[in-house]
Amino acid sequence: MWILSKIYVVGIGPGQYEQMTMRAADALRACDTIVGYTVYVELVKEHFADKEFLTTPMTKEAERCRLAFEEAKKGKNVAMICSGDAGVYGMSGLMLEIGAAYPEIEVEVIPGVTAATGGAAVLGAPLIHDFAVISLSDLLTPWEKIEKRLLLAAEADFVICLYNPSSKKRADYLKRACDLMLRHKAPETVCGIVSNIGRDGESCRVLTLLELRDTQTDMFTTVFIGNSQTKEIGGKMVTPRGYRNV
Amino acid sequence: MWILSKIYVVGIGPGQYEQMTMRAADALRACDTIVGYTVYVELVKEHFADKEFLTTPMTKEAERCRLAFEEAKKGKNVAMICSGDAGVYGMSGLMLEIGAAYPEIEVEVIPGVTAATGGAAVLGAPLIHDFAVISLSDLLTPWEKIEKRLLLAAEADFVICLYNPSSKKRADYLKRACDLMLRHKAPETVCGIVSNIGRDGESCRVLTLLELRDTQTDMFTTVFIGNSQTKEIGGKMVTPRGYRNV
Repeated sequence: MWILSKIYVVGIGPGQYEQMTMRAADALRACDTIVGYTVYVELVKEHFADKEFLTTPMTKEAERCRLAFEEAKKGKNVAMICSGDAGVYGMSGLMLEIGAAYPEIEVEVIPGVTAATGGAAVLGAPLIHDFAVISLSDLLTPWEKIEKRLLLAAEADFVICLYNPSSKKRADYLKRACDLMLRHKAPETVCGIVSNIGRDGESCRVLTLLELRDTQTDMFTTVFIGNSQTKEIGGKMVTPRGYRNV
Repeated sequence: MWILSKIYVVGIGPGQYEQMTMRAADALRACDTIVGYTVYVELVKEHFADKEFLTTPMTKEAERCRLAFEEAKKGKNVAMICSGDAGVYGMSGLMLEIGAAYPEIEVEVIPGVTAATGGAAVLGAPLIHDFAVISLSDLLTPWEKIEKRLLLAAEADFVICLYNPSSKKRADYLKRACDLMLRHKAPETVCGIVSNIGRDGESCRVLTLLELRDTQTDMFTTVFIGNSQTKEIGGKMVTPRGYRNV
């Protein structure tokens, strides 16, 4: 098949430029046009001053994808950038779905550090053993489905990482999630929250599941709930490598 | 507290040098000594020719950690490197545990691209929605615990990413895991396997859960089992963003 041009779907990591992989930076340098949500474009713009930047607002994801493909159809090399990793609640899936209508354009996904692993590094080492990643956003997923996942993941004693723990419209979702997890996890389970990972104002806190229940978070926060073995060591959240010899 | 020196625990990403973040490369350049498992040291050695390299074999993890702290005690800046992300089945937890005995040495964890997200990018976009990461290694975790997690994660309709799917001693573990998941997931569930992510000989394959059951993998393979919505699009494994409007 004749490939007209290429689109890179690039995870830029959790924050500033240096959190990007060298492969991601190389891809952005090789492009003519960089497409993305306004906030993410601002994080990288100064390092790629010679590029054309196109942005669309938060909720216009399908439109943003089509914009990228239409630019590529003109013969340009295009990058679609996402915060963190493009493949974790990111744009790589929608790009491949919409890309089915553009068979002449090749899509290459370039991974990045997602908030789960970026936030884990700030907190210490919460994800050392088996874990589950769950978004509390019920925009595209019914709450009953999210609830079922929270309960089963807690029953399985996974470390659990929550994306989108709350928003203005969903102020009590984290509390609801904690109440569900308290059915299987102890109130003193070691938890952690990280805000603004890798950006100005980065902050973190280690606390118990019971304390987490009454903590207000925002959309820039990632939440970690430990498993039954997770400990606090010198202010850090640490999960052992297994259940034997620990 | 007086900090004598610093240890960076660095995730070098899934493969070659370019898969590392710029922050990780900066940290390695700032060090005197790089400590790691022999195979990972070989992946980065040529790019940091002026450094001292210390290696220990696969099973000597605690020894490797103490080696790093003892070097730092001499006043050297030290990096402990891990494949992928240091916080996902990596060394950052053990470093913080053993580091409790070395309060004068600061430990900073620098995240990297783990095999889950690195492999997902090769396959397409399997992890777009909620997912669970499970290791099939029963070295430190009883198989009954692994079995329970596999069953509950399958019942919750998570996309599931398996690390350490098999080894010489555990040749039939992936088959056993697939049999458990077939209790909750359909035989035609879209799955994917990726080998040698980001390295020479990288390869991937999209297949059904029933086909996966009879596939032999090795310790350099990462396995992905889709959720009920995961599709194959143009040879790629793609999970939609949710259960509504898809």
